[in-house]
Parts: sequence; C-alpha cells; structure tokens
Amino acid sequence: MISFELSNILILVSTGIGLLWALYNAYKLNQIKIGTPNQYNNFQDDYQDHHSQLLLEIASHIESGAAAFLAAEYRYIGVVIILLALLIFFIVEPVLGQAWTTVAFLVGALTSIISGFIGMRVATFSNYRCAYCAQTKMTDAFAVAYRAGCVMGFALVSFALLSLTILMGIYINWFIKDYRDFQQLFEAIAGYGLGGSVIALFGRVGGGIYTKAADVGADLVGKVENNFKEDSPNNPATIADNVGDNVGDIAGMGADLFGSFAEATCAALVVCSVSPSFYYHPTTFYYPLLVSASGILVCFIVSIFAFVGQKEDFDQVSNALKVQLILSTLLMLPALYYVAYLTLPERIFGLSPVDRQPIHAWLCTVVGLISGCIIGFVTEYYTSHSYRPVQEIAQACGTGAATNIIYGIALGNLSTIIPVFLLAFTAFISYSLLSMFGVALSALGMLSTLTIGLAIDAYGPVSDNAGGIAEMVGYPQDVRHRTDQLDAAGNCTAAIGKGFAIGSAALVAFSLYGAFITRASNSLNKHPLTDLGVNSPLIFLGLLIGAMIPYWFSAFTLKSVGRAAFEMVEEVRKQLAEKPGIRDGTEKPDYDRCIAISTKSSLQEMFAPGLLVILVPLILGLFLGPTAVAGLLPGILVSGVCMATSSANSGGAWDNAKKYIEADLCEIDDIIKGKGTDEHKAAVIGDTVGDPLKDTSGPSLNILIKLSAIFSLVFAGVYDKSAWLLCAMTTSSSGCPA
Amino acid sequence: MISFELSNILILVSTGIGLLWALYNAYKLNQIKIGTPNQYNNFQDDYQDHHSQLLLEIASHIESGAAAFLAAEYRYIGVVIILLALLIFFIVEPVLGQAWTTVAFLVGALTSIISGFIGMRVATFSNYRCAYCAQTKMTDAFAVAYRAGCVMGFALVSFALLSLTILMGIYINWFIKDYRDFQQLFEAIAGYGLGGSVIALFGRVGGGIYTKAADVGADLVGKVENNFKEDSPNNPATIADNVGDNVGDIAGMGADLFGSFAEATCAALVVCSVSPSFYYHPTTFYYPLLVSASGILVCFIVSIFAFVGQKEDFDQVSNALKVQLILSTLLMLPALYYVAYLTLPERIFGLSPVDRQPIHAWLCTVVGLISGCIIGFVTEYYTSHSYRPVQEIAQACGTGAATNIIYGIALGNLSTIIPVFLLAFTAFISYSLLSMFGVALSALGMLSTLTIGLAIDAYGPVSDNAGGIAEMVGYPQDVRHRTDQLDAAGNCTAAIGKGFAIGSAALVAFSLYGAFITRASNSLNKHPLTDLGVNSPLIFLGLLIGAMIPYWFSAFTLKSVGRAAFEMVEEVRKQLAEKPGIRDGTEKPDYDRCIAISTKSSLQEMFAPGLLVILVPLILGLFLGPTAVAGLLPGILVSGVCMATSSANSGGAWDNAKKYIEADLCEIDDIIKGKGTDEHKAAVIGDTVGDPLKDTSGPSLNILIKLSAIFSLVFAGVYDKSAWLLCAMTTSSSGCPA
Repeated sequence: MISFELSNILILVSTGIGLLWALYNAYKLNQIKIGTPNQYNNFQDDYQDHHSQLLLEIASHIESGAAAFLAAEYRYIGVVIILLALLIFFIVEPVLGQAWTTVAFLVGALTSIISGFIGMRVATFSNYRCAYCAQTKMTDAFAVAYRAGCVMGFALVSFALLSLTILMGIYINWFIKDYRDFQQLFEAIAGYGLGGSVIALFGRVGGGIYTKAADVGADLVGKVENNFKEDSPNNPATIADNVGDNVGDIAGMGADLFGSFAEATCAALVVCSVSPSFYYHPTTFYYPLLVSASGILVCFIVSIFAFVGQKEDFDQVSNALKVQLILSTLLMLPALYYVAYLTLPERIFGLSPVDRQPIHAWLCTVVGLISGCIIGFVTEYYTSHSYRPVQEIAQACGTGAATNIIYGIALGNLSTIIPVFLLAFTAFISYSLLSMFGVALSALGMLSTLTIGLAIDAYGPVSDNAGGIAEMVGYPQDVRHRTDQLDAAGNCTAAIGKGFAIGSAALVAFSLYGAFITRASNSLNKHPLTDLGVNSPLIFLGLLIGAMIPYWFSAFTLKSVGRAAFEMVEEVRKQLAEKPGIRDGTEKPDYDRCIAISTKSSLQEMFAPGLLVILVPLILGLFLGPTAVAGLLPGILVSGVCMATSSANSGGAWDNAKKYIEADLCEIDDIIKGKGTDEHKAAVIGDTVGDPLKDTSGPSLNILIKLSAIFSLVFAGVYDKSAWLLCAMTTSSSGCPA
Repeated sequence: MISFELSNILILVSTGIGLLWALYNAYKLNQIKIGTPNQYNNFQDDYQDHHSQLLLEIASHIESGAAAFLAAEYRYIGVVIILLALLIFFIVEPVLGQAWTTVAFLVGALTSIISGFIGMRVATFSNYRCAYCAQTKMTDAFAVAYRAGCVMGFALVSFALLSLTILMGIYINWFIKDYRDFQQLFEAIAGYGLGGSVIALFGRVGGGIYTKAADVGADLVGKVENNFKEDSPNNPATIADNVGDNVGDIAGMGADLFGSFAEATCAALVVCSVSPSFYYHPTTFYYPLLVSASGILVCFIVSIFAFVGQKEDFDQVSNALKVQLILSTLLMLPALYYVAYLTLPERIFGLSPVDRQPIHAWLCTVVGLISGCIIGFVTEYYTSHSYRPVQEIAQACGTGAATNIIYGIALGNLSTIIPVFLLAFTAFISYSLLSMFGVALSALGMLSTLTIGLAIDAYGPVSDNAGGIAEMVGYPQDVRHRTDQLDAAGNCTAAIGKGFAIGSAALVAFSLYGAFITRASNSLNKHPLTDLGVNSPLIFLGLLIGAMIPYWFSAFTLKSVGRAAFEMVEEVRKQLAEKPGIRDGTEKPDYDRCIAISTKSSLQEMFAPGLLVILVPLILGLFLGPTAVAGLLPGILVSGVCMATSSANSGGAWDNAKKYIEADLCEIDDIIKGKGTDEHKAAVIGDTVGDPLKDTSGPSLNILIKLSAIFSLVFAGVYDKSAWLLCAMTTSSSGCPA
C-alpha cells in the first residue's frame, strides 16, 4: 500500500500530464492561422482572402453569441447557486456557522462553470479552423476536431480531479481529529458533487432548450416554409443553431459528465467511510481518486494514437474513433488492477458480510467498465443506419410520417431492454461483492475512460459546426462533403457516449442512494429509516410519485422547446417580411436578433424544470420525512433510466433514418427514395420530433436521476428534522414536537 | 351482522335484478324490426326497402366478421389456457391431484370468454339498429346505444359476481375443515382472477391489434393515398375497421374490466384471510362481494334515469352521461356505508397495528370511489377539446405535424401528474387505515360503479359503429350528424372510463402485490422474503427490470400494429389494382378478404406480448426466487401506470384535436383551419400515431400490471421452490438442494 504523500503525488502527476496534454493540443490548434500564407493557404489569393474574411466574421458571430449566452446563463444560475448556498449554510450545516458543506458546494459549482466555459471556448475556437483545414485534407480536419476534443476532455477531467483532491487534502488536514470524523467529512464533500450537479442541470436544460429551439425553429421556418437548405446563410436562425451546438452539446455535456464524475467519487467516499478497514488505512480513501487518475494516464497514451495514420474516408475516421474507445477500455483493465492492489488493504471488511480483497474491488470496476462498453455498442446498433433497426424506420417512412413515428417510438422502447438488464446485473453483482461501495466502484469503472469519451463527444459537434460554417462561407461542395463524413463518424460514437452517460448516471444514482440510506438510517436520527420494504405505504407512495417525475420533467422541457422554437419561428417570419431580400441573399439577415431570442427564451424556460428536480424531493422530505424520499429516489431512477434511454435512442434513430434517406441508401419497392421525396418529408418530421427528445429531455433526465439523489443525500438531515405531515398524523411518534 | 345465508340471498337478488334488467333491455332492442312497417319506417317505401336491405347486409358482414374473429381468437387462447391449466395443475397445486386452483382458473377463464362474447353479440346486434333509429330522432338512437351498454354492463357484472359467489359457496362447503383453511382457500380462488386476466390480456392485445391494424391500414391507404372519405363503402378495409370496434373496444374492454373486478375481489379475499377477526366471523368474507352487489343495485336505479327526457343535441346527451356517472358515485356513498355496517364485525383486528371499525372500511372504499371519479374528470380535461390542452395541440398543428406530436407527447406526460398523486395518496391513506385490505377495498370502491362505467364505455363504440354504417348505407347527412353527436359525447365519457380502468388497475395490482408478499413471506417457505428493502440488490434489480417491462411490452404491441396495418395496406392496394372500379363504386370490394387479413395477423401478433407478460416474472422467479419478483412487480406497476396514462391521454388528445379541427373550431391567425388544410393533415398524422397508443398498447398495459401481479401470487410457491441461480450463488443457503 502506498502512502498518503505518494497518492497525492500520483494524482498530481497524472492531472499534470492531462493538463499539459490539453495545453499542447490547444497550442497546436492556435498555430492554424487563417488568412496568413501557410500550408492551408495555397489557393488563388482573392478567393482565399474573401472566404477567410467571411470565415472569421461568421466565427466571431458564433463565438460572441455563445459567450453571451453562457455569461447570461451563468449569471442566472449564479443566483440559484447563492440561494442554495444560503439554504445549505443555514439549514444543512450540522453546527451553525460551520461551512464545510457550503464551501464544497461552491467549489463544485465553480469547477463545473469553468468546465463548461472551457468546453465552449475550445469549441468556438476550433470549429472554423476545422472548416478551414477541410479545404485540403480530411486528415487535417479530423486532427483539428479531435485535438479540440482532447483539450476539452483532458482539461476537464484533470481540472476536476485536481480541485477535488485539493479540497480533500485541505479538509482532511483541517477537519479530521479522529478517524471517525471521516464519515462527516465525506458528507460535507458530497456538497462538491451537488454543486457540480446543479450547474450541470441548468446547463443541460438551458443549453438543450437553446440548441433545439434554434434547430427546430430554423428547420420549421427555413426548410418547411421557405425551402432554405440546411445551414443556409440566408436563414436568420442559422447562426443561432450553430451557437446552440456549442452551448448545448458541448458546454452542457461537459458539465453533465463532470457531474457524473464528481458524484460517483463522492458516493464512493461517503459509502466507504463506514468501513473500519478504511478507518485504519485512511490513505485508501484516495483509491476512488486514483481510479480516475489512472484513467487520465491511459487515455493520454491512447489519444496519441488518434493522430497516427491517414483519415481520408468515413471508415478510417470511424475506425480510428472506435479504436480509441476499445483500446482505452482494454488498457484500463490492467491499470485498474494495479491501482486496486496499490491502494487497498489486503483485507476489506465491514462493507459486505464476508471480508473481501482488492481483487473484488477490481472486479466491480471491471464489471462497470465492460457493461458500459456493451451498452455503448448496443446504443450504436439501435441508432446507426448501418444496422437493421434504423433501416426499418427509414422503410416505414414509405407509409408516411405516422408509421415512421410509431416505429421510432417502438425502437426507442426496445433499445432499453439490453442496457437495463446490463445495469441491473452490474448493480447486483457489484453489490454482492462490495455492497454499495461496489456499486460506486462500478460507476467509477464505467467513467474511467471518461477523458476519451469526452474527447469523442466534443469532436462531434465541432465537426458538425465546421460543416455548417463551410456551407455559410460558401466553400466548394467537397469541403462540406469532408466535414459531413467527419460528422457522420462522430454521430455513431456520440451515440455510444450517450449510452455511457445514461448507464453511469444509473449506477451513480444507485450508489448515492445507498449513501443516502446510510445517512438516513443513523440511529441517532429523529426518524431513522426502519421499514424500507417496497410494500410499505410510504415507500410505495414515493416509488409511484418518483416514477412519474421523469414524465413531468420531460413534459416541461418538451413544451419549453416548443415555445422557444415558436418564438424563433415568429422572429424569422418577421425578418423575412421586413427584408424580403434575405431570401435570395441580397439583404443580410439579422443573426443577432435570433441569437438574443434563443438566449432569452431558453433562460426563461430553464427554471421550471430545474426547480421541479429540487423542489419535489425537498417538499416530499419536509412533509413526509426520509422514508418517502427513500421511495422517491429509486422511483425516479428506474423510470428515468428507461425514459432517458428510450428518448435518446428514438431521437438518434430518427436523425439517422433521415440521413440514410438523404444519402440515397433507402430503397422501397426497388425505387431509391432520396431528398425531396415524400419519404424524406416523413423522415424530416420524425427527426424534428426526435430533436428535443434526444438533445433536451433525454440527456437532462440523466441529471435528474443523479441530482435528486445527491440533493437528498445532502439534505437527509433536514428531512429527518421536519417530516411535518407525518408528525401531524402520528400524534405520539418520537422525534416529532409534542 | 348478517348471516351466511342472508349474504348469499342478497347477492343472488342483486345479480338477479341485474340480469333481468339486461334481459329487458335486450328485449327492447329486439323489438326494433328493420324492414317491416313500424314507427321508424314511415318513409317512401322503395327508398326504405333498398336501404333496409343494404343495412341488414352490412350488419351481417360485421356480425359474421366479429363472430369469426372471436371464435378464432378463443380457439387460440383456448390452447394457452389448457397449457396454463396443466402447468397450474402439476406445479402449483399444493397436493398433486388436487385441482382447487385449476378449477377456479378454468371457471374464471370461461366467465371472461362468455363476457367478451356477450359484449360482442350485443354490440353487433345494436349498432345497425342505432343507425336505423337515427333516421328520425336522436333520443331514440341514444336509447338504443345506451340500452346496448346496459345489456353489456349489467349482464357482465352480474354474471361475474354470480359465478364467483357460486364458486366460493361450493369451495367453502367442500374445502373448509378448519377456519384456518380460509387462507389456502382464497389462494386457490385467486386462480379465478388469473383465468379472467389471461383471457383479458389476449383479448385486449389481440382485439387491440385487430382494430388498429384495420383502422390505421384503412386510413393510410384510403384517406392518404386514395382520398376516400372516412367509412367510405368503397374502401375495402371499412368493414374490417367496424368489426375492429366491436372486438377490440367492446369485447376487449369487457374482458379487461371483468378482470379488474375479479382480481380486486380475489385480492381483498386473500389479504383479509389472514385477519383473525375474519376467522371468527367467516360470513364477513362476503363483504367484498356485497360491495359489488350493492353497486349493481345502485347502478340499476341510476340507469333508469338515462331513458328519461329528450336527448336531441350534444349537450343533452353529454349531460345525461355525466349525470349517470356522478349520480351513481353519490348514491354509492350511503350504500357502501350500509354494506360495511351490515357485514363487518364491530372490531376488525389483525390487519393494522390498531383495531378498526367498519367506518374505516367504508372510508377506504370512499377514498377509492372519489379518487376514481377525480381521475376520470382529469382525464376528460386533458383529452376533451372543450378545454385548453387539446386546443393547444390543435394550434400546434399550425407549425406542422412535428410540433403536434411534440406537444401531444408533452400533454400525455403532464396528464400523469394528478392521477399519480391521487393514486399514491389513495394507496397511502387506505393502507394506513386497513393495511393491504384497505388498498383492495379502495380498488373495489373505485370499481363499485363499474356497471355504469361499462354501459357508457360500450355505448361509445356502438354509436361510432352506427355512424359508419349510416355512411355505408348512404343515409342522408343528418343521420350521420346525429350519430356523430352521440359518438362525440361518448368519446368524452370513454376517456373518463379509461382513467378509471388505469386507476383501478394500479390499486388492484398493489393489493395483489400485498397478497403476494403475504404468501411469499410465510416462514414455512424455503426462501421466505426477509429483506424487502428498496436498497437491497435483488429488489433493486427487480425494480429496474420491472420498470423496463412496459417499454418492452409496448414496443411489441406498437410494432405488431405497424406490421398488421402494413399487410392491410398491401391487401387494399392489391384489390384496387385488380378492380379499379372499386374507386367509383362500380365494382364491389371484397370486404371479407380484409377481415381475414386482420384476423390472421392480429392472432399471429398477440402471442409475443402475451408470453412476455407471463414469462418474465416466471423466469425471474425460477432463477432468482421470490425476492427478485417482489422487486419486479412494483417496478412494472409504477412505470406501467405512468406509461399507460400517458399513452392513453396523448392518443385521446390527438384524436380530439383532429376532431376539433374537423369541426371548424380551430382558428390560427384569425383564419379557421378546417378539413383539408395543412393543419388538418398534421392533425391526422397525430391521430394515426395516437391510435395504437390509446387503443392497443395503453389499455393492454393495465392488464400487464394486474396480470403480472396475480400470476406471481398464484405461482409464489413455485418461485419459492426453485430460485435456481440464487442457490447456485449462495452455496450454503438453506432451502437449496445440497
């Protein structure tokens, strides 16, 4: 077993390597100068000058739009954060005036804000460079997009791990008087996870509404009413759509996965703090952190291979990305084994009925890692148009939009089967090995390749944006063709990433739930949990209401996208009426007004769903006490996982069915049905329905699942003290005021 | 308290009155002679002769189609029933050679088959009579449709109650040697509920696929491709569509609600059989039956009022139906009070921590009754076009089919909120009063107005069918107008009925779950349930898999409808190609071939979803034992209730949004958007998507919830004996073979 100091050094080294690698990639991106003569600039001068100028102009529109949205969003969220911090300070902290949890909460929130901001900056910095490089070679364009992904992935994970390690180091030095203080310490540190999650929720919901309001609005008024091409510069909503990709898909997703990482680590710490074998070797508390640190090193090695070799067609790109995923998974197996034996004591006791060894911890991480990988590939099977399910949907467009939608809903529902079985058995096996600590480890194992996952996830929207920019700048068709290939390859792997995100959310939430139960069962509580039986009325009440929350939440987000998109449609119609010349390009549309509309309406709309997630557990806990919440959380979890998977995959499948038809691959009765046919129109309707499902409500459900759990963990003591309605009903119960 | 004999006499009297009232209504229907001179036949002779002949011809097509489908369906289901009966006989019966459960199972199945058959016969007997009477007065047409509903409602409930009472009487006489035998007796009688449920499942799924395959197929090929009007006699699939209404909406729903009634009663009996206060007064076991018997009497009185007064416009009809519902609810309040005091002992002990009185039992039934009523009206609010939600969906059609669908999904999700809260608190309150017996009582209370509910539910499809028949016969437009009004009023109340069906299913399933827990916790078991905590891994595994089952199930049913509809489309295209004269009415389409297609494909498709419901709990129980099933059932319940509510209401809302537009009520930007506009086309797409959701997968989910619970109750002993995988994992566990 390694020492306290060595653990810290190992973490510092790996986060250092991660940050340096991110910086190096950023430096390489910065070397691509546009408009000055260089390797990418050997065309006829006039052409290149004009296009470069346009490129920079559009890029600055997108960049300023994204920065303005993020600044406004964080200003709004800042208010929520301050209110929550006050709430935590005054009612959660065990001793008034102490601020352990509050500080951890604020650090977590700040880290998440910075993560989202880094992601957005990198993306808006790289997207036009990617378009620029796509003029000559696809390999170069791929390198730009993937370097952007690496900057985001490595910076975010390293930075998050570093800030958590520093926080832990300070707290351990200041807080711990006795080994038994660890439990309280880690409950305070759970505030870090809560802070990250709250930002992630508003980021995902706000960004998700922004991007889909712009996308759906642009499609409805542009393609359907005015026959604009996709990404036509004449469509006033086009830039807003591109801004949306950066703030929704990149900043939102960055915050989301940062949240998963922070929560999984916090859950592991809280749960294992009850084990005496950890008391005796407190450096073992660094084990969860070292799992993530080893992930950074493995991913660093793997990511170097991404820049080796040519990537001149779809298959080469797609294979390179899949190799990244599979290689990092394979290399993690020995790395995790080594970490477990390096950090954990030979005998782990107090967590499960029998004593366990490090190998069992390793098995938990491996089960998570592998089932995450399988879930990813199952997701790809259901959403890629290389396989039967999406092709079947495309065929169903032959009988119209209605059958397309019916088949898409059925596909989404079917796609839940294997992931749910995998998650159920992962949780069961890892629980059998190491109780709730095992479940937290399986989540950490699943997230250990997070850095590569994030890089690939960010790569997608960057190349998507590059395509849009190439279209607007008016580059020749082959440039667009190159970025489309990159985007298509990114789409497949993005689906894999979504599968990971949902799977890890489920495991994280279950282990947080375990931590909540541990906290709420404390016999010193006023209302300690006694009857957790599924057949007990309060648990059943919680379960039923919990299962309904994802429906409520997704109704809110769907309607928000609808309303915001409608405002966008109105704005575009107004602009087209005011300046009819926009249609043929003789007048310039006012992009900024569309950006402002999207910003304003998404910020307005993000509060209702956000408050729902926080208020439902809070109100239920305040009135009915911790037992009702103990039913609520698994209700939200099981229903939310199914709905999130189904929404994401239905949406992804509709999107790719449309692309399948657009690529002239769909044959019905021996006739190829391509762009412009009735089949294509039916597919576009399916895609539009799927947009808010896969990019707004689906991914926000992940956060709903995790946030409600960590929120309840932090507020468990408050529920315990109140339980007002329960007190009113049971007149003589202990713990209630007389 | 009344005696054993008096209870029996009271039940016999009320079922007798119910059956006589059904017979009287059937007699009145039979008096309407078509083609012979009578009060409805005072037109010009030639006209009337021709139309009457056509009417009878079409009616006979529908009748023979429905009878043929039902006969074929019951033949297939018969095989399943025999296989299940053998399974029960050989592995469930406690002593080999005994057949208590098996016989109850067969009686339940037979009663359900007869119920469905009665419904279908009444409906096909009345629909054309309703069209015939609609030639003169709406009041007469209403009377025909409502009489048909009364025949169905009273015959079904009385018959079901009678057969259960006789079964109980015989079993008590033969079986009971000691008062403690009651528990085993009622576990055997639970087989009655299982028999009814299995038939209901296949009836609902098979009938649901039939009706929607015909409906969607007819719409797709008729309205979209060939511009046929709705119910045009030139569309070869029209008759199949009408047959579908009879076998799906009437026979299927009859079997479904019979199942709810049978299961609620069985659950109440099994749960209360553990109470010593029931041992000492065994006649109190008749209490659940007397609740239903009093319902028949109250509904009889209420239904007489339906035939009083004029019903010449939509409002009069709609009000008359609502009065039926509200009046029966109000009259049930004192009736239930009286029944409770008449039957129950003054002190009820052994069910809840403190002793209870009959008033508490009354409160449980009342909570169920009233929350059922509120759920009904909430459902109406979300699905009737008199209110904001549906109007908003119709407005959303202004931006196309995609926004229509997005808003519809959001509406369905929103509509789950209030019903779920009501159900959660109903279960909580009634459990707090009388434990699981209270929950069963609340389900019985909700179902006590079942007779009126069924009458209204059957009234709808009869008047809908009448409209279709009037169109095909070529009656003047005002006849169609009258039946449309009747149908529209029926639609609103049908939505209320669906709300009832889902709500009662949830409560029934929860009380059956309680019975299952009682059965599986028996300390004499090999694997008695010990840890039911939501945080225990087997329970969590079950919950997660359970929450996914409704997704799996609905994917199956949706795809089945898609495939069957596609076959119908192919058939119609073939007929139109073979005989082009069909289009203008110069050649006759071959209706029977379409009927045969629908029959064949729906029977093929019903097995996969049916087996899923039976096999998942069975396999999970066999391998992981009763604890995993104890997690599975609430998972299915909470997720299924939300999905069923959401599917049914989304579908209902899309349907009525389309009708709202067709009635020229939808104004967008001050322009009325009616039939034939783009808005109408968008609404038709929504309606088609909603069809299988509201009429196939949604209602079948109710049965899924209940059936999985009662199936597990009957098979609890088998799970206990096997638990193979669990035995393999825990080498030394007791109860596993060495």
